[in-house]
Amino acid sequence: MCLLDSIVAAVAWEAGKPLVIEEVEVAPPHKVEVRLKILFTSLCQTEVIFWEARVGTNTIVSSHFLAMKLQESIGEGVTDLQPGDHVLPVFTGECKECRHCKSEESNMCELLRINTDRGVMLSDGKTRFYKNGQPIYHFLGTSNFSQYTVVHVGCVSKINPAAPLDKVCVLRCRVSTGARISGASRIIGVDLSPHRFNGSKKFGVNEFMNPKDYDKPVQEVIAEMTDGGADRSLESTGNIDARISAFECVHDGWGVAVLVGVARSKDDAFKTHPMDFLNERTLKGTFFGNYKTRTDLPSVVEKYMNKELELEKFITHHVSLPEINKAFEYMLRREGLRCIIHMEKLENF
Amino acid sequence: MCLLDSIVAAVAWEAGKPLVIEEVEVAPPHKVEVRLKILFTSLCQTEVIFWEARVGTNTIVSSHFLAMKLQESIGEGVTDLQPGDHVLPVFTGECKECRHCKSEESNMCELLRINTDRGVMLSDGKTRFYKNGQPIYHFLGTSNFSQYTVVHVGCVSKINPAAPLDKVCVLRCRVSTGARISGASRIIGVDLSPHRFNGSKKFGVNEFMNPKDYDKPVQEVIAEMTDGGADRSLESTGNIDARISAFECVHDGWGVAVLVGVARSKDDAFKTHPMDFLNERTLKGTFFGNYKTRTDLPSVVEKYMNKELELEKFITHHVSLPEINKAFEYMLRREGLRCIIHMEKLENF
Repeated sequence: MCLLDSIVAAVAWEAGKPLVIEEVEVAPPHKVEVRLKILFTSLCQTEVIFWEARVGTNTIVSSHFLAMKLQESIGEGVTDLQPGDHVLPVFTGECKECRHCKSEESNMCELLRINTDRGVMLSDGKTRFYKNGQPIYHFLGTSNFSQYTVVHVGCVSKINPAAPLDKVCVLRCRVSTGARISGASRIIGVDLSPHRFNGSKKFGVNEFMNPKDYDKPVQEVIAEMTDGGADRSLESTGNIDARISAFECVHDGWGVAVLVGVARSKDDAFKTHPMDFLNERTLKGTFFGNYKTRTDLPSVVEKYMNKELELEKFITHHVSLPEINKAFEYMLRREGLRCIIHMEKLENF
Repeated sequence: MCLLDSIVAAVAWEAGKPLVIEEVEVAPPHKVEVRLKILFTSLCQTEVIFWEARVGTNTIVSSHFLAMKLQESIGEGVTDLQPGDHVLPVFTGECKECRHCKSEESNMCELLRINTDRGVMLSDGKTRFYKNGQPIYHFLGTSNFSQYTVVHVGCVSKINPAAPLDKVCVLRCRVSTGARISGASRIIGVDLSPHRFNGSKKFGVNEFMNPKDYDKPVQEVIAEMTDGGADRSLESTGNIDARISAFECVHDGWGVAVLVGVARSKDDAFKTHPMDFLNERTLKGTFFGNYKTRTDLPSVVEKYMNKELELEKFITHHVSLPEINKAFEYMLRREGLRCIIHMEKLENF
């Protein structure tokens, strides 16, 4: 294990500004850490939000929710992984020892849950990335817009080595959440972007509605379409009005609204008629589809291998790491679904 | 079956003003209706809210959530009840035929669910109460501050005739909701009225807190007391700040907050940090403890008969019907828990 230099990474020097491709150094993994070689990664709306709002108060190597990597070297105390294993690094980990990890209901690991503020490793409070001796910080525990990264072993999910890495790299929050929804015969997609409607058919959406096409609230339209309301709703934008609509569009008596997206503002107020709760509606937060990342993700990969889950449908664009800013532009323009960022196309890789 | 006159009832002529004991006439039951002789009834906070805010735009015979009555006469089409049966009339009915009644998840009967605005019977849109030929309206489907009342058969739950009527008349929303909560080893009661604390010990509450005693939000105090938050919380006042506290005091990952109370204002905004939902907290509305009133209430009465449920503890006051305004005063002063209103103490009964 040595200090790797001349590694290329996309660095966010300033919030909301294009990432800059830089040569950086990556230190070896410490105790209970692993160093990973990244082959493919991707990007989602949540990341764009973080990039616009938070990244850049200190410069960091930007990272994505889930990326696809090959484990390269391991630190002391790592017993269940070996160099060469195929793994998915995850932005929210599983220590397997805390009350959350031991609870069947939670995946919010006390030690390794998502932390958008911590840019350093847990063991020593330091980064593993440097440029000309100056620290460059981690992000979301994985920092995978980089050819190599160092992560806590609890943020690594070992998967079937036969799984194609350029596909399972898109296994992330909404895919895993969506995979949980089964048996729905009628799925109504709601989106402000009409060009997303055709694409969503591939995912089982059989009816569509654009709130812009109606002069009344979307929840009223859905209630009319569904004889009183949907059985379940899933909100994944984080927009407060969309969340309220998602809650109010479910049927009284048994409806459950599930919130997936990251809310944009601390000051958002969830305002609903008080009777909506008395009428036995439920509002449920979820995070990563309630999957425990190390325990459950390998079985989601198996679902893909067994053709129960079609990941190809999510992949609409491809770029190489130096073109990573294009991937952000696709997201900002709401163009397509997932863009795969290929590390191996780089000449110096 | 004849028109009963000289029946005494407590009439709300105006919102928020004391009820007036009046002699009224009660018509016989129509098709799928029953006329009930009332022996005991009671009162709760929710009723005080309705009495303060809504009753009196048209004068009505005020009614309570659950009262204890003996069935006196039945209308055409009533097949599962006979004169002499012991029954509990319920403010929210069960037709047994709609989607809600057929769903295992809901008790929000489409036909007979609580309706705070309808003061008349469903069959003909008319009242069964008159005073000097002028209509006096029903309230909440039961109108039981009266010696006799007429209700839809779907709002009547037939119970074990051995059950003491002066006890099971307090079987109502919070008792039935509370009866659902089982197995909790540590129950923290929260109330602004310190004199309620001793009384609540009888109901299994083993710790208490008064938000007035702390200079930080109650949810923060509870989080500290419980190593991160309660597993479940139950909010029964309807106050918006209490609802927010109830939600925020449950543990992330698995906590569920259940809202029982009737909210006071349509303009209340449920404002919470968006991360509270992302952190897998659940906010669940319930209504009458999710019990189906006709199907499930008889078994709750059996629980009382088997000493699994102690109703005596809820009963702190007794008044006769002419003293009914005292019962309102007890509620307004937050004094005691339940006041039984005895119909049989009246001289002209």
